[in-house]
Amino acid sequence: MDYPNDQAPGAPVRSGIPEHGRVPKYYAVKAQIDRLIDELGEGSPIPTERDLSERFEVARETVRQALRELVLEGKLRRQGRGTVVAGPKLAQPLSLASYTEGVRRQGRTPGRALVTLDRFPCPDALAAETGLTRGEPVWHLERVLLADDERVGLESTYVAEARVPDLDTAFDPDSSFYAYLADRDIVFGDADERIETVLATPREALLIGTPPALPMLLIHRVSRDTAGRPLERVRTLYRGDRFSFTTHLSG
Amino acid sequence: MDYPNDQAPGAPVRSGIPEHGRVPKYYAVKAQIDRLIDELGEGSPIPTERDLSERFEVARETVRQALRELVLEGKLRRQGRGTVVAGPKLAQPLSLASYTEGVRRQGRTPGRALVTLDRFPCPDALAAETGLTRGEPVWHLERVLLADDERVGLESTYVAEARVPDLDTAFDPDSSFYAYLADRDIVFGDADERIETVLATPREALLIGTPPALPMLLIHRVSRDTAGRPLERVRTLYRGDRFSFTTHLSG
Repeated sequence: MDYPNDQAPGAPVRSGIPEHGRVPKYYAVKAQIDRLIDELGEGSPIPTERDLSERFEVARETVRQALRELVLEGKLRRQGRGTVVAGPKLAQPLSLASYTEGVRRQGRTPGRALVTLDRFPCPDALAAETGLTRGEPVWHLERVLLADDERVGLESTYVAEARVPDLDTAFDPDSSFYAYLADRDIVFGDADERIETVLATPREALLIGTPPALPMLLIHRVSRDTAGRPLERVRTLYRGDRFSFTTHLSG
Repeated sequence: MDYPNDQAPGAPVRSGIPEHGRVPKYYAVKAQIDRLIDELGEGSPIPTERDLSERFEVARETVRQALRELVLEGKLRRQGRGTVVAGPKLAQPLSLASYTEGVRRQGRTPGRALVTLDRFPCPDALAAETGLTRGEPVWHLERVLLADDERVGLESTYVAEARVPDLDTAFDPDSSFYAYLADRDIVFGDADERIETVLATPREALLIGTPPALPMLLIHRVSRDTAGRPLERVRTLYRGDRFSFTTHLSG
């Protein structure tokens, strides 16, 4: 018996190279740079495009495409004019707990920056998803999510005005919305979440500071209080190159 | 009060168009086609590239880029020589239950196609993740996942040979591995899962029949039996344009 899988079980089988058929040249280079990344370790600068194109005897554009994908996947990150090996993705638990708690648990400092706070009559689609009444006033709170001052996500929260009439005056938008709710004795009962991957829109890319069309993780949440009454509808977009989500399942 | 958010709360705010600054031309076209998709409904063919380029007064290549992103995101799908409005993503629950059950619950027929079944000594990385012993024989079962004969994912399962010595002779690789375990009185106790987004490698794209570099959802699972002993390490890749995952959270 030999070791046909010399890699971590989390990595693509055969480094993603087909048993038969052609491999695009840029991908062969990508797989080699990927191995180099493992050797170098977090924070190390990688060789320049020019060095890499000489080392692998390919055009600069081929190296550039390989680097672009490695950046999109969060294995490399741009730093100043160079490119360095990125750290592991943040692993955020899927739980009723807030973003704040999840980021703190990983030893990072959570932050938020207000984009919009507005109020409007509950539209049909929101009413259908939450059980709120069409036309009742709802807040829309939109914030950029930060981890150690790095912009990592964008969150839209929709909540009935009747729940938190003083949201525009009594809430510090840089603080935890869940802590603000807890101060008002509003307690989460349960929530339904759905997670998918989408491409960042130009507006989102601008706000989060990512390349447009970067694959993102989008989490939809509809939550209720302990009495089962609708609480919030949240749409949170996380950088796909910086985040993963964890869950513990039991029988 | 007016309705600044005429859209579903799951859609990007302002259709993803920045308040200030330039919007790439292809993106403006993409947002318009996206609205057209909502009007047309599942299965409807969309106008040809030529018609769309005339309608929006842009170059064919601009339309092509917009369509490419809508296909990557699963809003459109290629059908024969044309392009039609895709159905909603399959919503698979994150649970200890199998792929089989999840797909059945959505009224689709699950299937699997064997890619590889091999056996090798447990490598370091796998031993570290699972608690198996380095060097003990493990099976690697790799299968394409199907839903109604459509290829939708690729799964690698690593399991100790000692657990299932007859895997190569007594197991039908087109059937449910979890049903096979249940027949042997092997019962799942709990599992840790991690979900992230990655780009399909050329090998994966070939096996699943997707465009290479399509954003995928990758789920890592490490499971144990009811006595807490290591059971399997699974790496499942799902088409990001066809799947979302759901979970119910309670306090």
